[in-house]
Amino acid sequence: MSGETNRLLGLAKELAPSKTTDAYLRELDMLASTGEQASSALLAIALQAEGFPSVSYAGWQVPIKTNSAYTKARIESIDDARIRADLAAGKVVIVTGFQGVDEAGNITTLGRGGSDTSAVAVAAAMKAAECLIYTDVDGVYTTDPRVVPEARRLHTVSFEEMLEMASMGSKVLQIRSVEFAGKYQVPLRVLSSFTPWDMDLTEEAASGTLITFEEDEKMEQAVVSGIAFNRDESKISVLGVPDKPGIAYQILGAVADANIEVDIIIQNVSKGGTTDFSFTVNRNDHARTIDLLKEQVLPKLGAQEVVGDTKICKVSIVGIGMRSHVGIASKMFGALSEEGINIQMISTSEIKTSVVIDEKYMELAVRALHKAFDLDQPKA
Amino acid sequence: MSGETNRLLGLAKELAPSKTTDAYLRELDMLASTGEQASSALLAIALQAEGFPSVSYAGWQVPIKTNSAYTKARIESIDDARIRADLAAGKVVIVTGFQGVDEAGNITTLGRGGSDTSAVAVAAAMKAAECLIYTDVDGVYTTDPRVVPEARRLHTVSFEEMLEMASMGSKVLQIRSVEFAGKYQVPLRVLSSFTPWDMDLTEEAASGTLITFEEDEKMEQAVVSGIAFNRDESKISVLGVPDKPGIAYQILGAVADANIEVDIIIQNVSKGGTTDFSFTVNRNDHARTIDLLKEQVLPKLGAQEVVGDTKICKVSIVGIGMRSHVGIASKMFGALSEEGINIQMISTSEIKTSVVIDEKYMELAVRALHKAFDLDQPKA
Repeated sequence: MSGETNRLLGLAKELAPSKTTDAYLRELDMLASTGEQASSALLAIALQAEGFPSVSYAGWQVPIKTNSAYTKARIESIDDARIRADLAAGKVVIVTGFQGVDEAGNITTLGRGGSDTSAVAVAAAMKAAECLIYTDVDGVYTTDPRVVPEARRLHTVSFEEMLEMASMGSKVLQIRSVEFAGKYQVPLRVLSSFTPWDMDLTEEAASGTLITFEEDEKMEQAVVSGIAFNRDESKISVLGVPDKPGIAYQILGAVADANIEVDIIIQNVSKGGTTDFSFTVNRNDHARTIDLLKEQVLPKLGAQEVVGDTKICKVSIVGIGMRSHVGIASKMFGALSEEGINIQMISTSEIKTSVVIDEKYMELAVRALHKAFDLDQPKA
Repeated sequence: MSGETNRLLGLAKELAPSKTTDAYLRELDMLASTGEQASSALLAIALQAEGFPSVSYAGWQVPIKTNSAYTKARIESIDDARIRADLAAGKVVIVTGFQGVDEAGNITTLGRGGSDTSAVAVAAAMKAAECLIYTDVDGVYTTDPRVVPEARRLHTVSFEEMLEMASMGSKVLQIRSVEFAGKYQVPLRVLSSFTPWDMDLTEEAASGTLITFEEDEKMEQAVVSGIAFNRDESKISVLGVPDKPGIAYQILGAVADANIEVDIIIQNVSKGGTTDFSFTVNRNDHARTIDLLKEQVLPKLGAQEVVGDTKICKVSIVGIGMRSHVGIASKMFGALSEEGINIQMISTSEIKTSVVIDEKYMELAVRALHKAFDLDQPKA
């Protein structure tokens, strides 16, 4: 049905190319919600044909109550009574993802990441033991197996690691669903859609990757759990910025006002009264950001120059163990140095260290780091 | 969207070829209701783009409450509060046709004829002055203009006449919507979809055909209002049936049990202790009906023979004035006789006289009757 939803939304955009009113967005949600409703009904019919009693519900029928922010609504509450009654009656219950209903009875959609989020939200409302997400991969890997053939599937990954991995481009789960799972402490298991349907519960528990919020003894005690990477970004630097308060706000405020999302932000100590300010944006926003800075920011700021580079990539090591281990970052830098890879930017968080390097070294860097942190070795 | 709905229902039938359970029909309604929802949202968006504030509602949002007879639900009540508030706020309100919601919050569809019926039902709930149905013709004609170029558009037609015309194959309005309009006394106006949208109210009132339940002085006092015809039927006769009580039930009971719809039924007086029993069915059911009668009915009944003819047509004159005028039927038979057309069956009701004739005379008969009853002459 996804092709059909895109076709419908395309028709809407043809009809009203520049509309953004609430009334318009309300109709977009009416439109966009039909695809999931149709595929849920078809799934119920398919299950019934196989002999499984089954029933499908649109978001408003559960109901999944949301606020009224059309096209990007937030879930406010879920009534589990109807689902629970059907489960008790032995039925397979199918709930449309991606949609709900507001206080006034208008259909809303949850926007990007809404489908997985719906699953997690329903699991939270049901106080389910686990929420299984069937996707096109069979779990979360130490890194992308297409880049590093030795990449291993992780049996368990912490919620925080998953957040860092997801936002870094390991496109296994929608980041918003992971946040939601964390908020309501719903254990999430990522499984392949090609998992045999008659797998027993023991096998199922051993398959996929469990994303857990509990750091118990069962947890793999790896310092680094995975290597994430991303070549969708470009680097932009504003050079020779007079070092005075409000610089970051003047630069990034203008960028944010233009609805451009910024990832890494770096400002180094100044020398000679000026400093250099660098950040990364999505490559699609590169030219627009440079223009914006040249036209609106540079004149006001008294900065000397704006330079950019689209031929970069970001490589990150992620691991909850990093919090209690020292020397992890330097081990990373050492491994890259050994391969002769120059580091252009560094950014760190509690459980992640990211570097920006020339994009041509991306695979080399990922393989080197995967090996340096012994990620190809199964853990005890 | 109608192609899309058919595609979805086709998928459902592929998945579950022989399902007829309530659980299955419920999912069919979930599926079938999505098309109207999508096209209603698109219409609202198109109107907004033209500067008309507009809002679309699915049946359950109004709500249009129905019973739980999935795929052929009946409307039970309509809440007009939401629509009334939007109209008061100057909005164009679009309500999906063909669907509603049952007591338990399940989506239902109204089945065949449901879209026009929804419009009439909403108009009844709103106590609207008129319900305008935009369709692919610009009104109800004295007969099909493709057969009789002199056919005239009727300014007004009575509810009863419209019922007879609709069921006779003048495919202007869905018969169920006309019945509904009669029940709730909603004046219905049939208009062309190509009516200019900026037509003023006076022009609009003069256009199309008004179907009214009031027989007031404004009503055209035509004896015959229109000629309906239909070549979808076939004639079946059971010959030499012993004339005793229960014959009609024995023959038609078996036919009804096989879900075959019967139109005209004729039994003439008996001679020599036996009678001939004739009726018409849809041509698609012809062979099946003959087989059924031969195998199941004839042996029990002691009848001599079953004969059938698919090369027939039915031509009817319809007119509320027939009730108070004598000699109308004989004028009809006379006109047909003048053209040398043999009448095979005759069936009459209060405001309709139908004849079954050889289908090759259909156009000739329609033209002759149209002329005989002066239908090509504008009325005062």
